Amino acid sequence: MIDLNADLGEGFGRWQLTDDDALLASVTSANVACGFHAGDPATMRRVCELAAARGVRIGAQVSYRDLAGFGRRAMDVPAAELAAEVAYQIGALEVFARAAGAAVAYVKPHGALYNRAVRDAEQAAAVVEGVRLSGAATGEGGPLPVLGLPGSRLLAAAAEAGLPTVEEAFADRAYRPDGTLVPRTEAGAVLHEPEQVIERAVRLARSGEIVAADGSVLPSGARSLCVHGDTPAAAQLARRVREELTAAGLTVRAFA
Amino acid sequence: MIDLNADLGEGFGRWQLTDDDALLASVTSANVACGFHAGDPATMRRVCELAAARGVRIGAQVSYRDLAGFGRRAMDVPAAELAAEVAYQIGALEVFARAAGAAVAYVKPHGALYNRAVRDAEQAAAVVEGVRLSGAATGEGGPLPVLGLPGSRLLAAAAEAGLPTVEEAFADRAYRPDGTLVPRTEAGAVLHEPEQVIERAVRLARSGEIVAADGSVLPSGARSLCVHGDTPAAAQLARRVREELTAAGLTVRAFA
Amino acid sequence: MIDLNADLGEGFGRWQLTDDDALLASVTSANVACGFHAGDPATMRRVCELAAARGVRIGAQVSYRDLAGFGRRAMDVPAAELAAEVAYQIGALEVFARAAGAAVAYVKPHGALYNRAVRDAEQAAAVVEGVRLSGAATGEGGPLPVLGLPGSRLLAAAAEAGLPTVEEAFADRAYRPDGTLVPRTEAGAVLHEPEQVIERAVRLARSGEIVAADGSVLPSGARSLCVHGDTPAAAQLARRVREELTAAGLTVRAFA
Amino acid sequence: MIDLNADLGEGFGRWQLTDDDALLASVTSANVACGFHAGDPATMRRVCELAAARGVRIGAQVSYRDLAGFGRRAMDVPAAELAAEVAYQIGALEVFARAAGAAVAYVKPHGALYNRAVRDAEQAAAVVEGVRLSGAATGEGGPLPVLGLPGSRLLAAAAEAGLPTVEEAFADRAYRPDGTLVPRTEAGAVLHEPEQVIERAVRLARSGEIVAADGSVLPSGARSLCVHGDTPAAAQLARRVREELTAAGLTVRAFA
Repeated sequence: MIDLNADLGEGFGRWQLTDDDALLASVTSANVACGFHAGDPATMRRVCELAAARGVRIGAQVSYRDLAGFGRRAMDVPAAELAAEVAYQIGALEVFARAAGAAVAYVKPHGALYNRAVRDAEQAAAVVEGVRLSGAATGEGGPLPVLGLPGSRLLAAAAEAGLPTVEEAFADRAYRPDGTLVPRTEAGAVLHEPEQVIERAVRLARSGEIVAADGSVLPSGARSLCVHGDTPAAAQLARRVREELTAAGLTVRAFA
Repeated sequence: MIDLNADLGEGFGRWQLTDDDALLASVTSANVACGFHAGDPATMRRVCELAAARGVRIGAQVSYRDLAGFGRRAMDVPAAELAAEVAYQIGALEVFARAAGAAVAYVKPHGALYNRAVRDAEQAAAVVEGVRLSGAATGEGGPLPVLGLPGSRLLAAAAEAGLPTVEEAFADRAYRPDGTLVPRTEAGAVLHEPEQVIERAVRLARSGEIVAADGSVLPSGARSLCVHGDTPAAAQLARRVREELTAAGLTVRAFA
Repeated sequence: MIDLNADLGEGFGRWQLTDDDALLASVTSANVACGFHAGDPATMRRVCELAAARGVRIGAQVSYRDLAGFGRRAMDVPAAELAAEVAYQIGALEVFARAAGAAVAYVKPHGALYNRAVRDAEQAAAVVEGVRLSGAATGEGGPLPVLGLPGSRLLAAAAEAGLPTVEEAFADRAYRPDGTLVPRTEAGAVLHEPEQVIERAVRLARSGEIVAADGSVLPSGARSLCVHGDTPAAAQLARRVREELTAAGLTVRAFA
Repeated sequence: MIDLNADLGEGFGRWQLTDDDALLASVTSANVACGFHAGDPATMRRVCELAAARGVRIGAQVSYRDLAGFGRRAMDVPAAELAAEVAYQIGALEVFARAAGAAVAYVKPHGALYNRAVRDAEQAAAVVEGVRLSGAATGEGGPLPVLGLPGSRLLAAAAEAGLPTVEEAFADRAYRPDGTLVPRTEAGAVLHEPEQVIERAVRLARSGEIVAADGSVLPSGARSLCVHGDTPAAAQLARRVREELTAAGLTVRAFA
């Protein structure tokens, strides 16, 4: 059993990026942009309606306040500010999830904040504090799970604060032998060959294994698999990943 | 019995504007800026905590998205966008009210949106649709009341949608004989003489009367009185208004 | 002889909109977004370099400050602020034009500001004041021409201030019998049939005639023809318009 | 002979911060905010007019794009973006300096960018590339000097690129024994006692000495002294610093 998550609603006003309709046909969890790196309110509303209609789980994709940099530039945001910004974004998304008859079901940091929270204990704790501060609860009334990289400071801080954690893996990103991602600024960071991505996805879901850039095999307990949504071919790849996972006998379903 | 409301939390990041601590000692309802014309998340959090600690009611002061113009420039925002923007702001404020042990208790548009919603039926309806869309509920579980100008399209739209309405009056703004406010761009729009403001406040609260700029006496059923918070002397004036209202035998209390 | 202008550089950060490379192969004047409705600095730089390399004239496409609305929402910006905002945008573009070995050669307001400046004398004058205030000069040292709709307040204000004016026409927009454009919010405002757009472009350039939505024939002295750049097929249409204009014996060249 | 520089125009729209009129009576160089951390176009225009009228030199105070954080949060902006952003800001300021009959005469990074460019060679080079890219020239036609901390990567990069450099010192900031500033996040980073600040200013200007936090005496060749403008008492302190420098026999004049 594996969850498929993707970043959705990453347009802003006149600008479109993710093919939300098509992606929602394949994924089981939607990381919805909340307005700080992308995602205007009308888009947030529409994506929540579409996700709820398809039974796709809605997550808050929280970010640094950085439209110009799409949230991909690390920022030294003081912890108290960052926590409040995270809570703000969750609250804003909550109204659209609620209006669609659903609820915000988890939180996943975006871009540079995601990467920073892998190693930066202060920012990791600030994100967790923001989740806690938001007081948001899943449809079942529990605290919001945090989705992140195995071994990250983020998941450690979430666990320490009593929040459920969900480990995820990336089928289309290169890994270092230590289990961290090769940064986007380095060549080969993103895998573009569909067959390779699909093969990695199936191996990961079936055997709990990821092959790092140096060929070493890393064990993974990831319960969710992230597929990217911000390229023209993304929706088609997501569909194929889902089909092949299903063909391999795996159940694609939102994490419990 | 009369409610005193003021705009609070109207700084942004490094910039301060309203003396929130001092104003909260006098008012009974706090219109908290939600980030679109002013009000960063950390400020929203702090103001909600201070308001809750004093038992001051928290309202969402929703605005056009216009930091550069402080929300004072009318904008032709399409209705669907405006409704989503209003809901977004309410949701963002909700988390801070909730974290402080309170709830968002009403909605009041800010600046140019407030003025536009007096006469523009489409934008008035969009604001109301945003309130409804937010699904926000008062501490007692009811729909959020809308605070506005008597006779405005806004209050008409709110009433039509089944939302409670609260009429407010301004002791420090000049009125036209038709009950609308003299625009800020005109001379004499804002009254600066404290004694005059206090006298108008007491007359309004006691006798339900406002004297317009041409000397005519307008009847008013306002249940809330707005005092401004964005001038250096504002907090002191608010304190004196409250004292004089009390001295005149009136009860200053948040509207029911 | 006719000029072809298009809006370019209308992405922002991660978001792309206009196919700048392709459009620059067809147009003779590039209306470059200056950061207020679209156009981050790196994009401005790149578009100026590409335009200069092709000998395409660079114009400042100035806008209301409104990234979320793409500058398509009319705003009541006070005249002094608007003039300063226009000058700011021109100055910012100047550095990139200069670095590319060119100069800002004209100014054209974008979206809602363009439309508002057709009838609003105050905002029209503010735009012209911004151009004047910028002190920007063409490569030949003269004041910047203003590109606009024939009969508009904008061109009247520019002429009154001693700025050169250039009338433009739209081959893909429906006209009212009075020579104004059918607003985008109305059905049929934008013509999507390539053959029709090309036929209108050729007739306009050759005979100085535009057929309005009601079938009436309007005379036009437009020296520039605007082709839109913000649709997937835009660059191809621009190429075909240029080819057909050339085939019809017209010279496509930047206005003098 | 010593120059006095201060950050000016650091309001934004409705928000004021620096008392520009009063500060301009004391300083000889005005670091004018260019819109990225503060400084709306109308404010930039006004400050340039006031500075030019008083013969105060105008400098571009360039920043990360970060209104919410007032440019005080370090950001990992890629070099090409940062260079373009710096050029954009210089260009925008140029029009207002020019309209006031002056010219942009130097560049000084603000806040977190200033601090980052002390040690980060890539960002330091990007700032310098932005200055060069802007093509801006002083009133005498030369390239713009860069104002910065002695020993910084920024000044090294500027010198390497052939730009004049001007070293500055801070009378009201605590220094580490290595000549760097104690970060604002640490206690004692900013000195608030006027007499102490004045004494340090005079000693610095007369003897070229700064006393570090640990009591060690650092030699300084600073030709400019920065006084802060963003506190209520700032203008008065600037006036006193100037008076005492003059009383000590020093000439307060913009750097050559």
